Amino acid sequence: MQKEDITQTLAQTVATLADFSSSGMVYAPKHGRIMPSIDALDEIMSNLRSIIFPGYYGKSRINSGNLSYYIGVSVDKTFHLLSEQIARGICFAQIENETSNCELNDKKARDITVEFFKRLPQIREILISDVKSTYNGDPAANSFGAIIYSYPGLKATTNYRIANALLKLKVPLIPRIITEMAHSETGIDINPGAQIGKSFTMDHGTGIVIGETCRIGNFVKLYQGVTLGAKSFPLDKDGNPIKGVARHPIVEDYVVIYAQATILGTVTIGEGSMIGGNVWVTKDVAKNSKILQHAAQDVRFNNGLGI
Amino acid sequence: MQKEDITQTLAQTVATLADFSSSGMVYAPKHGRIMPSIDALDEIMSNLRSIIFPGYYGKSRINSGNLSYYIGVSVDKTFHLLSEQIARGICFAQIENETSNCELNDKKARDITVEFFKRLPQIREILISDVKSTYNGDPAANSFGAIIYSYPGLKATTNYRIANALLKLKVPLIPRIITEMAHSETGIDINPGAQIGKSFTMDHGTGIVIGETCRIGNFVKLYQGVTLGAKSFPLDKDGNPIKGVARHPIVEDYVVIYAQATILGTVTIGEGSMIGGNVWVTKDVAKNSKILQHAAQDVRFNNGLGI
Amino acid sequence: MQKEDITQTLAQTVATLADFSSSGMVYAPKHGRIMPSIDALDEIMSNLRSIIFPGYYGKSRINSGNLSYYIGVSVDKTFHLLSEQIARGICFAQIENETSNCELNDKKARDITVEFFKRLPQIREILISDVKSTYNGDPAANSFGAIIYSYPGLKATTNYRIANALLKLKVPLIPRIITEMAHSETGIDINPGAQIGKSFTMDHGTGIVIGETCRIGNFVKLYQGVTLGAKSFPLDKDGNPIKGVARHPIVEDYVVIYAQATILGTVTIGEGSMIGGNVWVTKDVAKNSKILQHAAQDVRFNNGLGI
Amino acid sequence: MQKEDITQTLAQTVATLADFSSSGMVYAPKHGRIMPSIDALDEIMSNLRSIIFPGYYGKSRINSGNLSYYIGVSVDKTFHLLSEQIARGICFAQIENETSNCELNDKKARDITVEFFKRLPQIREILISDVKSTYNGDPAANSFGAIIYSYPGLKATTNYRIANALLKLKVPLIPRIITEMAHSETGIDINPGAQIGKSFTMDHGTGIVIGETCRIGNFVKLYQGVTLGAKSFPLDKDGNPIKGVARHPIVEDYVVIYAQATILGTVTIGEGSMIGGNVWVTKDVAKNSKILQHAAQDVRFNNGLGI
Amino acid sequence: MQKEDITQTLAQTVATLADFSSSGMVYAPKHGRIMPSIDALDEIMSNLRSIIFPGYYGKSRINSGNLSYYIGVSVDKTFHLLSEQIARGICFAQIENETSNCELNDKKARDITVEFFKRLPQIREILISDVKSTYNGDPAANSFGAIIYSYPGLKATTNYRIANALLKLKVPLIPRIITEMAHSETGIDINPGAQIGKSFTMDHGTGIVIGETCRIGNFVKLYQGVTLGAKSFPLDKDGNPIKGVARHPIVEDYVVIYAQATILGTVTIGEGSMIGGNVWVTKDVAKNSKILQHAAQDVRFNNGLGI
Amino acid sequence: MQKEDITQTLAQTVATLADFSSSGMVYAPKHGRIMPSIDALDEIMSNLRSIIFPGYYGKSRINSGNLSYYIGVSVDKTFHLLSEQIARGICFAQIENETSNCELNDKKARDITVEFFKRLPQIREILISDVKSTYNGDPAANSFGAIIYSYPGLKATTNYRIANALLKLKVPLIPRIITEMAHSETGIDINPGAQIGKSFTMDHGTGIVIGETCRIGNFVKLYQGVTLGAKSFPLDKDGNPIKGVARHPIVEDYVVIYAQATILGTVTIGEGSMIGGNVWVTKDVAKNSKILQHAAQDVRFNNGLGI
Repeated sequence: MQKEDITQTLAQTVATLADFSSSGMVYAPKHGRIMPSIDALDEIMSNLRSIIFPGYYGKSRINSGNLSYYIGVSVDKTFHLLSEQIARGICFAQIENETSNCELNDKKARDITVEFFKRLPQIREILISDVKSTYNGDPAANSFGAIIYSYPGLKATTNYRIANALLKLKVPLIPRIITEMAHSETGIDINPGAQIGKSFTMDHGTGIVIGETCRIGNFVKLYQGVTLGAKSFPLDKDGNPIKGVARHPIVEDYVVIYAQATILGTVTIGEGSMIGGNVWVTKDVAKNSKILQHAAQDVRFNNGLGI
Repeated sequence: MQKEDITQTLAQTVATLADFSSSGMVYAPKHGRIMPSIDALDEIMSNLRSIIFPGYYGKSRINSGNLSYYIGVSVDKTFHLLSEQIARGICFAQIENETSNCELNDKKARDITVEFFKRLPQIREILISDVKSTYNGDPAANSFGAIIYSYPGLKATTNYRIANALLKLKVPLIPRIITEMAHSETGIDINPGAQIGKSFTMDHGTGIVIGETCRIGNFVKLYQGVTLGAKSFPLDKDGNPIKGVARHPIVEDYVVIYAQATILGTVTIGEGSMIGGNVWVTKDVAKNSKILQHAAQDVRFNNGLGI
Repeated sequence: MQKEDITQTLAQTVATLADFSSSGMVYAPKHGRIMPSIDALDEIMSNLRSIIFPGYYGKSRINSGNLSYYIGVSVDKTFHLLSEQIARGICFAQIENETSNCELNDKKARDITVEFFKRLPQIREILISDVKSTYNGDPAANSFGAIIYSYPGLKATTNYRIANALLKLKVPLIPRIITEMAHSETGIDINPGAQIGKSFTMDHGTGIVIGETCRIGNFVKLYQGVTLGAKSFPLDKDGNPIKGVARHPIVEDYVVIYAQATILGTVTIGEGSMIGGNVWVTKDVAKNSKILQHAAQDVRFNNGLGI
Repeated sequence: MQKEDITQTLAQTVATLADFSSSGMVYAPKHGRIMPSIDALDEIMSNLRSIIFPGYYGKSRINSGNLSYYIGVSVDKTFHLLSEQIARGICFAQIENETSNCELNDKKARDITVEFFKRLPQIREILISDVKSTYNGDPAANSFGAIIYSYPGLKATTNYRIANALLKLKVPLIPRIITEMAHSETGIDINPGAQIGKSFTMDHGTGIVIGETCRIGNFVKLYQGVTLGAKSFPLDKDGNPIKGVARHPIVEDYVVIYAQATILGTVTIGEGSMIGGNVWVTKDVAKNSKILQHAAQDVRFNNGLGI
Repeated sequence: MQKEDITQTLAQTVATLADFSSSGMVYAPKHGRIMPSIDALDEIMSNLRSIIFPGYYGKSRINSGNLSYYIGVSVDKTFHLLSEQIARGICFAQIENETSNCELNDKKARDITVEFFKRLPQIREILISDVKSTYNGDPAANSFGAIIYSYPGLKATTNYRIANALLKLKVPLIPRIITEMAHSETGIDINPGAQIGKSFTMDHGTGIVIGETCRIGNFVKLYQGVTLGAKSFPLDKDGNPIKGVARHPIVEDYVVIYAQATILGTVTIGEGSMIGGNVWVTKDVAKNSKILQHAAQDVRFNNGLGI
Repeated sequence: MQKEDITQTLAQTVATLADFSSSGMVYAPKHGRIMPSIDALDEIMSNLRSIIFPGYYGKSRINSGNLSYYIGVSVDKTFHLLSEQIARGICFAQIENETSNCELNDKKARDITVEFFKRLPQIREILISDVKSTYNGDPAANSFGAIIYSYPGLKATTNYRIANALLKLKVPLIPRIITEMAHSETGIDINPGAQIGKSFTMDHGTGIVIGETCRIGNFVKLYQGVTLGAKSFPLDKDGNPIKGVARHPIVEDYVVIYAQATILGTVTIGEGSMIGGNVWVTKDVAKNSKILQHAAQDVRFNNGLGI
């Protein structure tokens, strides 16, 4: 192919690609506000990790003399980044409405961000409870540090707790992107709408899925591949799923669910129960039950791995 | 250990490591052409995403006034990057042949790349159909944007459709690297040789495996953990697998396959069928069938999660 | 909210976040040594890959004339980086002990690093055996290069073999971080304490878990989702798991284990045996056995995918 | 010094440095708007150079097929960057006024930036005249390209013409920063307030100084070290210089001034005159004069260098 | 030339270049300590500027709420960077002595760095006096900010004051590198050994040279091209210059020296004197003198430019 | 201005700027070869400095054990970078000729680059002589290292010697860009065509200009502001300067020229002569002459500064 032909072909391709008119797709909101940025959200999450677990994340050398400086700078930077992304997220949700004044959302976004930062110490506190419960329950973990540095479960929980806090503050879109970042990194898929108590542990983690209307108590432990899903969801008269209906399990305090177990529907797993590996549960489970796999009566307290 | 000893030990290690003579391994083709670069392919894929879904990917602020500029620059840059990598890929496949004139491949690579870009608008069109079908089928998705921003299924499908287009243009090696990039990011493993129709949906996605000779129709939907694999593969008289034989399922239009279902061999899943979660299928399934798990008769249209 | 209020609220948040006194958490060792850096370990692993598989990883154009220069520079840089991280890792393990003189660990770390580099050629040799066995066993692999470029199994094995070598040299913490990096990238979770022989193959890989006290022979092949876990672990009188007890499978030479199979406890899978997909094994398996799934008698040599 | 003492000393230093209260200095405007950024202005100037002289500046490979894309992207990016910096510059000039509403300046800044871009083609046109005159007058210049790539005179003129255009649009502060950037890079110090005609040439350039109220015609050429300064400036009754009074030379068309010549005050150098090297001029010079140094009657058309 | 020949030629060149044995040059100290790094010193100077003039330098948005965080982080980072470079500088001065224990210098360097930071507030204070005097004396400067942002004189003075402080703390090599950085950026060459009082102004600046044993009082102002040099320096009996002898001018308080004036030797310019442009002075000048150029009796208070 | 108007105005500006048709300017050669890149040349010069003065430039820690690796890698990288830029430079010189086959220049460029690298050890040798002569003649220089780290004279000489070597190998354009880089960094302007012997020293340096046909012997020393220029240049009948005629001074061995001296025309400064500061020379100077400024008979061996 001649050089001129290449140039011409590419120009034509560009023209076609630049025409979205018939696609029904939106490449930019009509009100002209810039769209949320994955890169910025990456940076935000990276900053928040370094605020919550200083020394482990972030490049800095932390000590008692400089800790407040580093946290101060990270909070300041992240405040502006997050406030901007929240504003974009809100505008994006008004994407169709050409007349909406997106600039009005800036103040709203700033207020939400302030509120989020006010809650951040509590988020850290509950994440510390997660670190401790993981440490206490895992013979292979020989320090809190090892968990913070390398446990995928804690990473996914960190993203979830931040995303959930933002969702409660009515931030659209952004929370889901944040939990999907952890999904990509860890293979653990937690919907930001789920409710999860303190001292939560996930071991190995790959393949865990936690649905939107799950309610999980305190001191709960999940192993890899556990699904907390919906059994079915009611349809409206047009055959479309009705939104917002509770359809996922309630898992009470001190429950342990071993690897690959599948629990579906609005069932309740009673306090202190143990669900064995690969078990399939679609009915309520009484408190302190031990649901073991068929013939596997010799498999007690088995995590499907036991590392 | 003394400083001199360290220096000497490291020098010896370097010498050993620089000697590949007895390894049978190739660290560079004999014809001297540089090998394909993962970093360059990463950049290419990142550019292609920003061409296909401008605003969502890429750092730029897009609007109707500047869209063609940004797409034009991305196409121009990517054209040269991709052309170079294709040329390297072709040369790499001729790795053993010292006398091959790799420079001859440059023109060939350029022609392939032009052809690829000519097809890119079609690829985008079918990807838009994937976005729409995902949106229509998922109650949790409240905008096309949420899907483009955060659904791992769409990311894996995007890489697959690009890799598949390159494979059809006879590009060696590169397509497989591209789908493995998505595998690493999403946990979804699609062989670039598979054929997948329009309006394709994968939800949650982690653990999905789609084999090389699969043929998947339009409007098909898969949930996490679905395997479309081979039951067995015929061996030649030396006990080595015979290549190129069809050995994976045919999935017709409008089929839905729920989480963790395993379908093996050259079976056909008839149009409009529904395969329940955790089902194991090794035989043909008639049109409009509902293959449900054993006792789980109350689980209709269950996605194993139902989010 | 007024600007002054925002400033004040953030300042208060910073003050709260900078106070770890009641958390029981450690954000920095008392002896003041900087903590291990994930970024540095990322760079180290990236360098080591480019030393082991030059041309495939790293940005450089390698040929017989410059190979030793590039390997020399990478070894030199990585030596200093790794030595520093090992020293930090050792100090981190002494985190509580304010009076420990962490600077004394520098020499120790340097000696360990020298020893590690002395062993690196052997590590490469065994990794080359892994590449070859993967190539020989996979009809879809048409060159060693395709495996090195894109097989997640090889990536996870590379990280494991490096981490295992460091663990044998008594390096704390760092090995686990290194295998978790591969876990995040590939979905394959190998404990650095496991023992794995030469010519090891993992295909597809997502979801594979290999426990700490596993002993795997030569020429073993695993497919995606295989778990080599513990059936149970003995508790001490306080109900805490007793550490260091062998509790994972022994897999002898030439064993093949197909997708999603689960093998738990200190069972032995005899030489040359084949474990079918989705099989659940908790008892010893004699040499050359073929353990197939229940009714799936027609599924011979099935990898659960067969790509 | 003990570690604790160091920490304490640094903390005290930080506290002292963070207290600007008694300095009379402003580290941030009272209205809270961020201050202009040197880095952003660097990027802006770099972009503008690549817009004016594509191919020479910027990383891109330019051809007739992609030129408009690259210029389009650069214009779009630079528009937003420059608009932001102009707004900051305007606010900075209102630095003392706490009650000023700096956000009101955003629209003003945007309008100025639009106007600036409308004038950019004219700026380029006149810069092209500068390139051509430099080429025509310099035997050592063998292509337009050599001048664009490497002549410090053209770099300083480019920054000046941009800064002058912004000054005419009443942008405060920013123009001076832009010409000082060129001063640092080239050793040529042109006040943005000077008026300079088309086809302007500076050779070698180091040490040239051109004052604020200079008026320079077309086709003028200056060599290194030329000063166009003020002889004196009138003081008000308090002994402070009165601002805005014309106090620098008027240099008419076709004048050439050789190296190290010093011309002071509101003198006029008549059209077509030649001022010799090291000459000191404080009086008007008639048209077509040749002002040579004392005994140096053999130095005709000497540029003090003649390269 | 054939590819093999190129490879061989380059290898030979590398071998020759790697052999410094007969050059008498040092590419690394014998004691093995790494040499000072220009890049690190660049970063240090950049940090120090952002500490001294926050908001103007550094990327951050500064306000009263976050100022101490940003300064705290910059001080902390710079402390470690500078301490390391000082240690390297000290070791470099012991370059020939293989047996010197360079690691002993670490503590010394740390102590020097602490002392330097203790003095930093004073350095800032005197630099603020320089800003103010520049502002007061220049009709073209309409805010302190314009001076901090763009005056080369202030940049050179900043580097000088920092270098001078380090020199007084007996740091070898590093101070000279720091003033040369400013020389490269501004064309102003100040030896770090010179003594310069407060409220110092340099206008335009290009070509100013200030010698090692100069003693400059308070409220002194210099214009571009001023040289404060040595008339001659005494030689020892071998014809080598004797070091450390005072050989440069003493410039008392409130002196103004106009452009291109040259003052040589250990002469004293008495308090309040004015030295005109291009004047050549090699003798003492009494207080309150006005030394004007020959016939230029009409040039009063001429700065050679008067901008 | 309304958003739509802005968009439209910018689009129009882009269209105007993308139209070079009537400008007579070249934004890209007709043969389509990419133009030389300033960024690449920057990287090349930075690499060459680190090859010539390892440890001083480049980030690496150099010792006898790793020196050859680092130089090897730098040579390898720079070889490809430089070869590419030389090819582009050659093509650029053929810019008007649409039919020229620029790809033919690749081999030529590679051969030139090989030859350049063969000469690099000699270039380093002569640069080492420059370092030594600078050290011997400057009382303020207390180590070779101080000179290499911070003397602008050596930086300019380094760029000049490299540029001169390339010019001798008939490389167009690139040499001039390289010396202009040093001009920008140091204020020293050396034409790459000048011939300069070994053991060359420039002190302070700002403002030195050395013309194209200068011939400078060995052991020559210049101070800041020295001009070695042309007195006049002969014009052809059309009034254009005749190119290639010798028009600059010949400076013989052991000459010293003090600050601001101006030497013009094809005069010869005889061996061992000393030219005083600010002297103006347009006639031959006999061997061992001392040309002092008018009444300044007491200024012996004055460097105009004497530092």
